[in-house]
Amino acid sequence: MQGVYCHASAETKTDMTFAVFVPEHQEGTKLPVLWYLSGLTCTHANVMDKGEYRRLASELGLIIVCPDTSPRGDDIPDDEGYDMGQGAGFYVDATAEPWTTNFNMRSYIERELPVLIAQEFPANMERQGIFGHSMGGHGALTIALRNPERFKSISAFAPIVAPLQCPWGHKALGGYLGADQIAWRDYDACALIDDGARVNDILVDQGTKDQFLEEQLKPNLLVEACKRAAIPLTLNMRVGYDHSYFTISTFMDDHLRWHADRL
Amino acid sequence: MQGVYCHASAETKTDMTFAVFVPEHQEGTKLPVLWYLSGLTCTHANVMDKGEYRRLASELGLIIVCPDTSPRGDDIPDDEGYDMGQGAGFYVDATAEPWTTNFNMRSYIERELPVLIAQEFPANMERQGIFGHSMGGHGALTIALRNPERFKSISAFAPIVAPLQCPWGHKALGGYLGADQIAWRDYDACALIDDGARVNDILVDQGTKDQFLEEQLKPNLLVEACKRAAIPLTLNMRVGYDHSYFTISTFMDDHLRWHADRL
Repeated sequence: MQGVYCHASAETKTDMTFAVFVPEHQEGTKLPVLWYLSGLTCTHANVMDKGEYRRLASELGLIIVCPDTSPRGDDIPDDEGYDMGQGAGFYVDATAEPWTTNFNMRSYIERELPVLIAQEFPANMERQGIFGHSMGGHGALTIALRNPERFKSISAFAPIVAPLQCPWGHKALGGYLGADQIAWRDYDACALIDDGARVNDILVDQGTKDQFLEEQLKPNLLVEACKRAAIPLTLNMRVGYDHSYFTISTFMDDHLRWHADRL
Repeated sequence: MQGVYCHASAETKTDMTFAVFVPEHQEGTKLPVLWYLSGLTCTHANVMDKGEYRRLASELGLIIVCPDTSPRGDDIPDDEGYDMGQGAGFYVDATAEPWTTNFNMRSYIERELPVLIAQEFPANMERQGIFGHSMGGHGALTIALRNPERFKSISAFAPIVAPLQCPWGHKALGGYLGADQIAWRDYDACALIDDGARVNDILVDQGTKDQFLEEQLKPNLLVEACKRAAIPLTLNMRVGYDHSYFTISTFMDDHLRWHADRL
């Protein structure tokens, strides 16, 4: 059952929409939960429409939770670019104005939504994994690195691995958190690893024809950080693939199996 | 390789866009071709984005061709409704004004596009199947019934089976062909069967919660026509499923296997 739900969020002070896929299961069974965080411009719907996860998630018995990427609404702050504001929450708790009231996607994903998922769905919260795409890959990596006890499996498609070292990151973290880059380190996967965060292993798929590869994504920075920290990283460079959902759907099965093996 | 192509069509006198998926294959091999015809409001892109056909089409070695549903353009006739004009060609050769110049989707699908597919892709045109959704299910059924020597396999998701007996059909066929319903019978699957058309077998999947089921789709009319003609029809009524691409993607694998078995 692919559902779409809306609730009043205390963290964002808005109504928030999210999608949950629950496979067929025996009454009373609790299933592992895999969180999918979406990228810039996306809502809960992009991966639901184009991610091609339902067939194998059914077979593997995984609940898939797909949150939105930011608070939304006519009264909610926004930016003229596609890379900040509505549709671009970057999974941070904003500390700078005008964002701080509503843009608390870190707390929303880490604290508020899990309570709701545990209450309303047949979810075994002892068995959680997380993955995402681009900005959502950044979200998945940073949330998992800050909460390694909660997430037993981590992967990403074309993630932003080092916001401190790319234009998207400088704009968004500078806007949401202010100019002091010390505060940014909590939201940078490579910096978190360098600062001591550890996880069991990480899977990343990255297309070689991704238009954002060199300027924004820079997977080699994650390779180097994981090497310094002795974190096993599987980085698959996919020849000819781009930044789109065609890439995601092509390698979705590999990621679902990666998570199922660890959950 | 999922490609999207554009060409100047002689039949529609417009540029036409279509999508073709070609699975990995050995150089020189020619693969069977499965045509997918889309429904009202769709372009080539809907099933490409949401149909979830690539994984299994790769495994089965099927080329998937997805044409647009009509000619398009600012200078091309249109209707204010979603159910006629651009995005709603109904796979007819129009004989009434203002449609007759451009709205020749029957000849485009039956004659023009197959020549291009045979020229430009590694396609074995001796092994063709056809399927579609809603208006595209109508297209698939009627084109196959008129060309049984060409299509070795036929299926549909939630097809319009009898335009002569539903509001969509009366509006579209009345508009494109004029008031004389004798001319409509070439574009009505049930009428074609009653008039003597025969195919080996047909697969249909239909959701029980499809909002168009009772007024527009009426699968029982096809059940009765096939019974009268002794055409084996497999009609799967899918409990709780609607008219959306979620239904299509859920049962896509069954349809691909149906076609592969016959191709």
